[in-house]
Amino acid sequence: MGLIVQKYGGTSVGDAKRIHNVANQVIEEKEKGNDVVVVVSAMGKSTDHLVELAKGISEHPSRREMDMLLTTGEQITISLLAMALAEKGYQAISLTGWQAGIQTESVHGNARIIGIDPDRVEQALKQGNIVVVAGFQGITEDGSISTLGRGGSDTTAVALASAIKADKCEIYTDVTGVFTTDPRYVKEARKLLSVSYDEMLELAHLGAGVLHPRAVEFAKNHQIQLEVRSSLIREAGTIIEEEVKMEQNLVVRGVAFEEDIMRITIIGLPNSLTGLSRIFTALAENQINVDIIIQSTLQDQLTNLSFSIKSENLNETIKVLEERKDVLKYEKIESEGNLAKVSIVGSGMASNPGVAAEMFEVLSMNHIEVKMVSTSEIKVSTVIEQDRMLAAVEALHEAFKLSGLPVNS
Amino acid sequence: MGLIVQKYGGTSVGDAKRIHNVANQVIEEKEKGNDVVVVVSAMGKSTDHLVELAKGISEHPSRREMDMLLTTGEQITISLLAMALAEKGYQAISLTGWQAGIQTESVHGNARIIGIDPDRVEQALKQGNIVVVAGFQGITEDGSISTLGRGGSDTTAVALASAIKADKCEIYTDVTGVFTTDPRYVKEARKLLSVSYDEMLELAHLGAGVLHPRAVEFAKNHQIQLEVRSSLIREAGTIIEEEVKMEQNLVVRGVAFEEDIMRITIIGLPNSLTGLSRIFTALAENQINVDIIIQSTLQDQLTNLSFSIKSENLNETIKVLEERKDVLKYEKIESEGNLAKVSIVGSGMASNPGVAAEMFEVLSMNHIEVKMVSTSEIKVSTVIEQDRMLAAVEALHEAFKLSGLPVNS
Repeated sequence: MGLIVQKYGGTSVGDAKRIHNVANQVIEEKEKGNDVVVVVSAMGKSTDHLVELAKGISEHPSRREMDMLLTTGEQITISLLAMALAEKGYQAISLTGWQAGIQTESVHGNARIIGIDPDRVEQALKQGNIVVVAGFQGITEDGSISTLGRGGSDTTAVALASAIKADKCEIYTDVTGVFTTDPRYVKEARKLLSVSYDEMLELAHLGAGVLHPRAVEFAKNHQIQLEVRSSLIREAGTIIEEEVKMEQNLVVRGVAFEEDIMRITIIGLPNSLTGLSRIFTALAENQINVDIIIQSTLQDQLTNLSFSIKSENLNETIKVLEERKDVLKYEKIESEGNLAKVSIVGSGMASNPGVAAEMFEVLSMNHIEVKMVSTSEIKVSTVIEQDRMLAAVEALHEAFKLSGLPVNS
Repeated sequence: MGLIVQKYGGTSVGDAKRIHNVANQVIEEKEKGNDVVVVVSAMGKSTDHLVELAKGISEHPSRREMDMLLTTGEQITISLLAMALAEKGYQAISLTGWQAGIQTESVHGNARIIGIDPDRVEQALKQGNIVVVAGFQGITEDGSISTLGRGGSDTTAVALASAIKADKCEIYTDVTGVFTTDPRYVKEARKLLSVSYDEMLELAHLGAGVLHPRAVEFAKNHQIQLEVRSSLIREAGTIIEEEVKMEQNLVVRGVAFEEDIMRITIIGLPNSLTGLSRIFTALAENQINVDIIIQSTLQDQLTNLSFSIKSENLNETIKVLEERKDVLKYEKIESEGNLAKVSIVGSGMASNPGVAAEMFEVLSMNHIEVKMVSTSEIKVSTVIEQDRMLAAVEALHEAFKLSGLPVNS
């Protein structure tokens, strides 16, 4: 007898029929003799609907009140799923984030989990319940309701799995697993049987969108075995764990991409020890995620600093920087939009020089200009013009021989 | 500087425009130098929408999960109202029932408040906030979310007013005050300037619908001054307090009525000391409210017992009684529907014999058959056929000279 955490996203619980479908899958696991904790997101487009409601009231609602508003979405789903399970004759209980002991830092809109008190979930399991927990939400130290930000339900599932020492954490989603690239755009995309945490982390960070990066980090740190699989199609998904059988010694395991990137360039920035930290601390305090940062400084000269952000953060980024113009003493800010990020990812890359060079060569042969570059041990990211994004992805997918993999490898 | 609790019902917060309107009224009170706590219900028809969602999942959802579901309604309203207040430049904070310290008994669907921990509300006020609290909801001892049943937001407001020692509790609704009878049906209805708690209690119990009886009871027990007034029309409402200046020495202050009543008759019930308590304990345990009870027992004979319930409780009432047929040993159950209750209410009645007789005479002159009667110190209730209800109300309103009152007396 095992203990399984399952997580179902918004599409999987989008209407009454789908909620019954999820209930059936949960019951299937329960009937195998396992204890089951289910983490769910808000139904389909309900979060968008709540955001619309808020916009009808205020242009810039406070993050605390947005959290109060948005967390009703998952609260609705947990009650309905618990009802569906009871309707089928199974004892079930729903718990909100705070009831499930999900403690977060005192931030709203994008809080991190700082601890989980598993008592109540464990007690409910002991009483024979299937436990249905609201994803995406927690409680701050002063008792306010907080949210974990986009994709936070994945993090809830993994953190809970760790806290209650679950044997496995299954992430049900609308795709059948992790692919070499996005199958909605590239028909040659192939499903991977397994990937390592680090590879998944880069794929997640790079916008593969299947799993939230925080969830992968958490799983890696606590060595929780994850499986990404479809809630609609019954087939094996992708296992994410430490030891990966190297499939055909592939160097590059996937090509990830992300639209709506902007490059911000701060021009004429005086050399100072504190300048960089001032800029990025201010951005972080305003919950603006900065991705690629490029600067090379020469002694005694004004320099230029470039970094990439999501397009949606443009206005706030400019506002934050302009408010600090007196302190930072730069000349001006420029921004360039309509950019995309394309990255190749693979654990084998670190021991394989020349992969980056090959990537640049493929892009150059396809007349794609590289505007920014960033590298890590297991990935190379480039920022290019958005209208060339898919051409770049297809060329790279082909060049690194990902299209040739059998479907289930 | 005073401390005011205001309560706004579902119609008053039905859309973004109305929420802004409520925010303006709250601010008006704040600008007078008062501290304000606002209690709100779920927006307009949102509770009905949630009930529909549940019905799509399960025919008999558990009360606990219904509470989990329904309480999202007020949580949405509190966040939106707090946003509207902030948008207008006022510091505001929203609190759910459990955050506001509303502790209830461990019952779902119809829980009573057993205590309020006012710390958090008081602290938020001290920090300069307008505090927006979710009505209708609380938390049980084991940390589950509970609801107070229909009209529960009124009770939240009054109980909070008592706990934080507010100077006044204003109940904003879609009518301008308490009337001699329902002005939607009887155009001669007139607003009362003030009523006593007991009169209001009878009016509320009898379905006048303006204020929830529990809220009035609570206000009476804690001597909280209530005012019922309109959220849309700016005019003085009706004050509910202990000392009422007797308006023109009126004996009868109002005519209340309620549709959809059923009479249940248990036929051939053996005389026993425990029979009555068994029946009504079983009904109470199933949250079925029984109103009028009629029985006159003769020694050593089988008797008949009649009582009235709301039509919506018919199926469950029959079920509860049939399950206990072996114990209760009655012959059969009969039920009669399409009934209504019509009552006259007034503090002066106790010292004025013959008021009940006058009522029966008025009904008889109008050829209205009285099927059940119940009396208290300050009211006489009759159950009659539903299609004669309005005729009865109009005749009584006229006969007891309520139509002649000036509008604001």
